[in-house]
Amino acid sequence: MEKMTDKIIPDVIVGRLPRYLRTLQHMQAEGIQTTSSQELGERLGISAAQIRKDLSQFGEFGKQGTGYAIPFLVNQLRTILKVDRLWDMALVGAGDLGHAIARYQGFIDCGFRIVMIFDNDPVKIGTQLGELVIQDSAEMGSLLKSAGIHVAMMTVPAAAAQSVAEQLVAAGVRAILNYAPMSINVPHDVRVQYIDPVIHLQRMTYYLE
Amino acid sequence: MEKMTDKIIPDVIVGRLPRYLRTLQHMQAEGIQTTSSQELGERLGISAAQIRKDLSQFGEFGKQGTGYAIPFLVNQLRTILKVDRLWDMALVGAGDLGHAIARYQGFIDCGFRIVMIFDNDPVKIGTQLGELVIQDSAEMGSLLKSAGIHVAMMTVPAAAAQSVAEQLVAAGVRAILNYAPMSINVPHDVRVQYIDPVIHLQRMTYYLE
Repeated sequence: MEKMTDKIIPDVIVGRLPRYLRTLQHMQAEGIQTTSSQELGERLGISAAQIRKDLSQFGEFGKQGTGYAIPFLVNQLRTILKVDRLWDMALVGAGDLGHAIARYQGFIDCGFRIVMIFDNDPVKIGTQLGELVIQDSAEMGSLLKSAGIHVAMMTVPAAAAQSVAEQLVAAGVRAILNYAPMSINVPHDVRVQYIDPVIHLQRMTYYLE
Repeated sequence: MEKMTDKIIPDVIVGRLPRYLRTLQHMQAEGIQTTSSQELGERLGISAAQIRKDLSQFGEFGKQGTGYAIPFLVNQLRTILKVDRLWDMALVGAGDLGHAIARYQGFIDCGFRIVMIFDNDPVKIGTQLGELVIQDSAEMGSLLKSAGIHVAMMTVPAAAAQSVAEQLVAAGVRAILNYAPMSINVPHDVRVQYIDPVIHLQRMTYYLE
């Protein structure tokens, strides 16, 4: 694949790549070696034309008539998304959801691992959560900086979200996955993604009778 | 507002409405009575022009120069998104994440409440989770049908996702929020939304150094 450093890819396309990767990895696990944009599209509910167009932004990954070699395409997508490495993450907020996320086994094979967990509750600080000990969020800044952590997940109450986000950014975090039901303002060079079940549910009820 | 039954609104616009509603409700809670597309846009990281354009699809909600009356706009959005009522939901999968979701207090004020929880683990069936008792997923179909439930959340392992989705659809569910890291195939009249932290994380690492 050629390096295309000058090309800016629309974020909506970037956003579909992890879904392609996820599905290709499932196919690989099923023992499938090659696929087509049609087959991939059926699994994903995305048109074959869209998939071909998206992938063509990054290079030539398949051959007319023979389709895509799955192991090759998986490796290419992992490189493009920079998950051919392992990103250390911090988790802020050790409530019910934080506990569930800390115990989730699905990160490690996808390029991520939680290496620090923070909370501000004295009852929780110092207790074990999975393989980690919950640390005092008052020490978050210095600990994140010295560990060079750039990715964080926030499972804090809505009222704390903006303040925690600012602390994360000040400590060098450049990508925040925010589970708090609250928009946060961060500098333009910091990426934020939101996970809020209510937003998804309301998007669906619009269409219901 | 006029009724516009013939107009098909792009789903990407529908998808932004819950974010507008969420932010307007936060402003309301802060005691703010009116707002502008500029102010709303700054909170959301969306341009004022985009917000005006999106809202204009559904009617005239603000006046030139005076902006939007927040209580009025909140009510209109709740009606448009059909969350001016309370939707009964089923939760399938009572693992760590299912437990966290069952205990989440943020659904009830946004139009949703969990009324049934299912699992297939004999150890879990019959035990209490919050105010509900975990029920046997073998009885899910008949229980959902008789209760007339149309919205469900799935927190099941990836390998079970397609099968559970088919059971939900057969029982009359028309909107599924899928937390399993797996695409599911459902009929065209059934809505699916996905929550998968890895997808969001990989979308951000693309942009990191």
